[in-house]
Amino acid sequence: MIVEEEFCFDEMVRIYDTDAQGIVHYAGYYRFFTDALEQFSYERAGRLFPAINDNIWFVVVESNAKYYKSAREGDKIRVGLAPKLISEKAIRFDFSIIRDGDLLCEGYITQVAIDKNEWKSVPIPKDLISKLIHKKS
Amino acid sequence: MIVEEEFCFDEMVRIYDTDAQGIVHYAGYYRFFTDALEQFSYERAGRLFPAINDNIWFVVVESNAKYYKSAREGDKIRVGLAPKLISEKAIRFDFSIIRDGDLLCEGYITQVAIDKNEWKSVPIPKDLISKLIHKKS
Amino acid sequence: MIVEEEFCFDEMVRIYDTDAQGIVHYAGYYRFFTDALEQFSYERAGRLFPAINDNIWFVVVESNAKYYKSAREGDKIRVGLAPKLISEKAIRFDFSIIRDGDLLCEGYITQVAIDKNEWKSVPIPKDLISKLIHKKS
Amino acid sequence: MIVEEEFCFDEMVRIYDTDAQGIVHYAGYYRFFTDALEQFSYERAGRLFPAINDNIWFVVVESNAKYYKSAREGDKIRVGLAPKLISEKAIRFDFSIIRDGDLLCEGYITQVAIDKNEWKSVPIPKDLISKLIHKKS
Repeated sequence: MIVEEEFCFDEMVRIYDTDAQGIVHYAGYYRFFTDALEQFSYERAGRLFPAINDNIWFVVVESNAKYYKSAREGDKIRVGLAPKLISEKAIRFDFSIIRDGDLLCEGYITQVAIDKNEWKSVPIPKDLISKLIHKKS
Repeated sequence: MIVEEEFCFDEMVRIYDTDAQGIVHYAGYYRFFTDALEQFSYERAGRLFPAINDNIWFVVVESNAKYYKSAREGDKIRVGLAPKLISEKAIRFDFSIIRDGDLLCEGYITQVAIDKNEWKSVPIPKDLISKLIHKKS
Repeated sequence: MIVEEEFCFDEMVRIYDTDAQGIVHYAGYYRFFTDALEQFSYERAGRLFPAINDNIWFVVVESNAKYYKSAREGDKIRVGLAPKLISEKAIRFDFSIIRDGDLLCEGYITQVAIDKNEWKSVPIPKDLISKLIHKKS
Repeated sequence: MIVEEEFCFDEMVRIYDTDAQGIVHYAGYYRFFTDALEQFSYERAGRLFPAINDNIWFVVVESNAKYYKSAREGDKIRVGLAPKLISEKAIRFDFSIIRDGDLLCEGYITQVAIDKNEWKSVPIPKDLISKLIHKKS
């Protein structure tokens, strides 16, 4: 199932994303997820994850990726992102990576809000939720 | 649940594993998983994943990590690994990362054997299975 | 001396470029150099370094960076690139990284053309030189 | 000229050090330099670079590498390190990477001591110099 994307980020696979198998190293796809997430938070909330404001940081509590087809250097890929509020403190971001209509990879990153000084989880501020997660009408 | 480890690999967290949050970047834990897997395959089968012999390569079809506590530069960590044959063509490697008795991270990487020339999945050779996966008596 | 740039590439510093010092890890600046070089070769020659065509690859024989000021996550940087033919087989690419008019970093990467099958250095094809290196009038 | 090494660090090239050319990515050699430097400072001074104590951090002001031969996944390499005090505030670390007696790569990293709170360069404490740099008799 391709994620019902709310946001897209285009990029090109770089030589440093690949390994000696000639394809993107499995952990390299998380770079694409991160790029899409940072651009999303920058456009929606004016700041990049994980330091979303002066008090609140996000920390990753889970990451997952399933790999269907291989990407190679020079490939133009589109990373789709869909945020889901899964508790008052946590957001799961679902990702898909598409190349020319082919689904290459799907996955997610779950992030929990913390008070960066206490390093304890806190509820995500309501105004931040409203910026990051648009209700569907 | 901490994996019932068959193999352990010790290492030290490096500055390049961390990011500006002061802790290991979430995707950096996959480096520790990979190090343990490569050392495991080197000791058991004489070759490193993913190019396990001249015909057979392994490709990653899924990766997952759950993060419980943060690691920092200089931390001495122990990576536990337990392989499980999940089909005639696929092995799942379960990982745990421990620091001073604390479980920091758990996850897995699922690898499928391919014929590297055809780039098609193939059954894992029996002699390789017997080297990598020891039956418990 | 800021390089007399022939080509510019804009990007944003990502969380994975940084380390626990809060700034971009020293080796991370080479990612920015590589991004600029790949985009340059893509626009000028239709293919990305280092596999510039089906026979010719480039291999790096030297890399260098001097760091003047630190970059941080979210910084918008401009990478300038200037190619110089230094022998019939080698090109040196000079780079500068600017943020809001401040020079953060300068460096270079020297690349030598090889026949990818023989893995031996070869003269750079003239048509490739003419695409990559524009004479100043 | 191979560096007159004071310290050696052995490691194995990993799959994530390589790129689609089948060899170690040029920027990947800096990981080997960093590993040797961290182990050196850990053994000599009890702490890892760059946060050498609670007040003093080191920041990299220059990095350089020359590449003579290529390393591949599974290669066992030896990284030699020789520190040189080049001013009261700066140390240059020279590195060499050897595989089976062949010199693969040489380079250096120049580090300057800073007060981490002021983020200004400071003289390196004498006791730290005496730990890191042994006079030759």
